[in-house]
Amino acid sequence: MTRRIHVIGIGAGDPDHVTAQAVAALNDTHVFFAMDKGSEKDDLVVLRRHICERFITAPGYRFVALSDPPRARTASDSPAYRQAVADWHAARARVWAEAIETELEPDGVGAFLAWGDPSLYDSTLRILDAVAAHVDFSYDVIPGISAIQALTARHRIPLNDVGEPVLITTGRQLREHGLSGSAVVMLDADCSFRDCRPETRIWWGAYLGTPDELLMSGTVGEVGRRIVELRAEARARHGWIMDTYLLRSAD
Amino acid sequence: MTRRIHVIGIGAGDPDHVTAQAVAALNDTHVFFAMDKGSEKDDLVVLRRHICERFITAPGYRFVALSDPPRARTASDSPAYRQAVADWHAARARVWAEAIETELEPDGVGAFLAWGDPSLYDSTLRILDAVAAHVDFSYDVIPGISAIQALTARHRIPLNDVGEPVLITTGRQLREHGLSGSAVVMLDADCSFRDCRPETRIWWGAYLGTPDELLMSGTVGEVGRRIVELRAEARARHGWIMDTYLLRSAD
Repeated sequence: MTRRIHVIGIGAGDPDHVTAQAVAALNDTHVFFAMDKGSEKDDLVVLRRHICERFITAPGYRFVALSDPPRARTASDSPAYRQAVADWHAARARVWAEAIETELEPDGVGAFLAWGDPSLYDSTLRILDAVAAHVDFSYDVIPGISAIQALTARHRIPLNDVGEPVLITTGRQLREHGLSGSAVVMLDADCSFRDCRPETRIWWGAYLGTPDELLMSGTVGEVGRRIVELRAEARARHGWIMDTYLLRSAD
Repeated sequence: MTRRIHVIGIGAGDPDHVTAQAVAALNDTHVFFAMDKGSEKDDLVVLRRHICERFITAPGYRFVALSDPPRARTASDSPAYRQAVADWHAARARVWAEAIETELEPDGVGAFLAWGDPSLYDSTLRILDAVAAHVDFSYDVIPGISAIQALTARHRIPLNDVGEPVLITTGRQLREHGLSGSAVVMLDADCSFRDCRPETRIWWGAYLGTPDELLMSGTVGEVGRRIVELRAEARARHGWIMDTYLLRSAD
């Protein structure tokens, strides 16, 4: 008898992104473990519950809120950043291990739901790796539609130029290393595209797949300022924002 | 009255990758347009039909095979390569335009099915862009689980290191530019990972999501030669192979 855990990618925000594989895993799950992300992301908590209600046919599943250990607030460009992330992952791993042990029967099935794809800028897999040091369980990973794919689908564009590479990166990395070719930028609260040359093409999206979705495209010179304004306005109105964008250099 | 086209990502090979959004689009479609890829990929034709049979509830849809115009065989590293691809896309666009006009009613709904995600190393969107010059239609894009996501899910690994970028690239690009950090390599018939330093970590997968799936991981020094052998043997047995891999440099 071993506890089992599913790590389920539930897509970028549109419940219709959910795959047949994810539906099967949702229906196999007794306990959904969830971080309490604080009130500013209540929209996402509601959306997550809506996905469960829509796709799970049998009653009896439940949610268990995991408290989130405090995280040292180091700037993401400081040398202490990686250590702070590692410490935080270790603290989370202890919380998760205890929850898995106390909330799941010895043959129980739990799940962590991940927005987008569990492999992309998400810490669930890294933390579960550390949890394995504390408690015995097996787990599998169910891929999900990422924000990158929602972005290119809604703009109806290829991610790559023919035979050319694409970099998936962060705002910080873009500011440090600049743009060469095509790059998707995630985790960028600073509109780092403003550092790019005005003729750089940009395809931007926020709240992708949700009724609040925002899309804009053009060159950085044409639409960069409007994206900055639109983003600030939307963030103030919703209390949070998730956005991503694709850049292609003009040369 | 306008003809409508869905470009539907159907996942990396596992029918369970199909999303609720894709299921709705499949059921909305009257005519599925498909390239004739030749006998060596019969497995994929069968799998595509299986996906339609499994998820489409109403009868009456049909498949229309599109002949594939001949493609000038230039090496992918020759300067003529991009031009050859562009000419081939233009020729395909004429074939597709004629098929859309003759096979679809003026208010008909057609679809192109794309393995993985339609935005990633797939020419459908580029060709449809050119088709629009010949015939009037509207289209939307439905994202699908890509081989990259199937690879990381099956290996249960994050795609990126914490806060670090990932390059999506091709075998040719890897050989030309070398590896720095993390890279996913697609479209590589040459096992280009052999050029990497032996301590480079590799997570490889072929026929991802299908019953024939192959997975291997380790360092290039440990498993590189075995992947080359396994790949050649599998390719000979099936008559075709689709594979991809993630590399992480040791430093």
